[in-house]
Amino acid sequence: MKPAALPTKEWIIQQAATLFNTKGYYACSLSDIMEATQLKKGGIYNYFRNKEEIALAAFDYSFQLVLQRFRSKLNLAETSWEKLHIIIDVLASMAFEPVITGGCPIFNISVEAPRLDPALALKARQGMQMLTRYIEIKLEEGELQGEFSCSRSYEEIASTMVGSLEGANIVARTLNDAERLHWAVNHVKEYLVQNCQKP
Amino acid sequence: MKPAALPTKEWIIQQAATLFNTKGYYACSLSDIMEATQLKKGGIYNYFRNKEEIALAAFDYSFQLVLQRFRSKLNLAETSWEKLHIIIDVLASMAFEPVITGGCPIFNISVEAPRLDPALALKARQGMQMLTRYIEIKLEEGELQGEFSCSRSYEEIASTMVGSLEGANIVARTLNDAERLHWAVNHVKEYLVQNCQKP
Repeated sequence: MKPAALPTKEWIIQQAATLFNTKGYYACSLSDIMEATQLKKGGIYNYFRNKEEIALAAFDYSFQLVLQRFRSKLNLAETSWEKLHIIIDVLASMAFEPVITGGCPIFNISVEAPRLDPALALKARQGMQMLTRYIEIKLEEGELQGEFSCSRSYEEIASTMVGSLEGANIVARTLNDAERLHWAVNHVKEYLVQNCQKP
Repeated sequence: MKPAALPTKEWIIQQAATLFNTKGYYACSLSDIMEATQLKKGGIYNYFRNKEEIALAAFDYSFQLVLQRFRSKLNLAETSWEKLHIIIDVLASMAFEPVITGGCPIFNISVEAPRLDPALALKARQGMQMLTRYIEIKLEEGELQGEFSCSRSYEEIASTMVGSLEGANIVARTLNDAERLHWAVNHVKEYLVQNCQKP
């Protein structure tokens, strides 16, 4: 039930965000959102023109939750090296303690992107760019500050890190074996040691 | 249009396999299959009881195409070391020259599995098990034949290989940058060198 203090529009966005992140953007219908919010079609259309508009707002909301988790953990770190390790742990945490039911919202929208409307597919791309770009920045910072020197391009290291963790997520989930995600976390941390050599 | 020599049941399976592999198992409807096959509902229900039965047959068909590609390429190799490299290349080839429109069928059904009926989710698991298990067998064979010795469990090496390639697939597709898949292929081959040491 909607908390009294929460504006209806926010309530719709929050309920829809969970639905989209579990059922998928394509499969989740307006009826699903009506049922979850206990609102009639007109009550939803007061705030949004169509399902896509709800989906875009719901993704933005989920994305903010991801950013919040990154920020709250990254604040605890000082060096770029520590920050890179926190990024790895936060990405892995999305599988077991997700910020929103259903797992990592960026990962989920990305696997669905080829079937989605262009505006939603663009959100997937922007989310993925944020993840990889943020790692690239930390790699560059670490080099500038003399913490380590990278033996490959920032793009390649970031891409390998994100890809390995996202893929392990699928393998672990499909085989119902969480150990496989832990292997990937260790693997990515070793990869970082190999490719960012300390002086 | 259906080739005259092709039995109607096979025609339905082949058309449905492409649809399921592009639109997804959840989103693809019986109407989509009717349109693609140019058959009426009754014409399809002569052969299948429901959409799920078509989906199961369609996945089995797609899976056979994957196996065929593996077999045809693996026949060219002699050593386990060569075979492991071919498995990597075949997995990567599923993105650019897929055996069926839409990319790797095992990968596609796996990302959708949490939303699918148990029988289809089981197909995803069996497909993923086949991929990882096959790599494990080649690792064990290579060790037995004295080609190399593995510094981690077969399960861990296989899981890391499959996860890295599948994840890179998503990253490359989402960012529309094929280079990222090539990076992953090189990364997995280096990982193999590091973890399967030649005597």
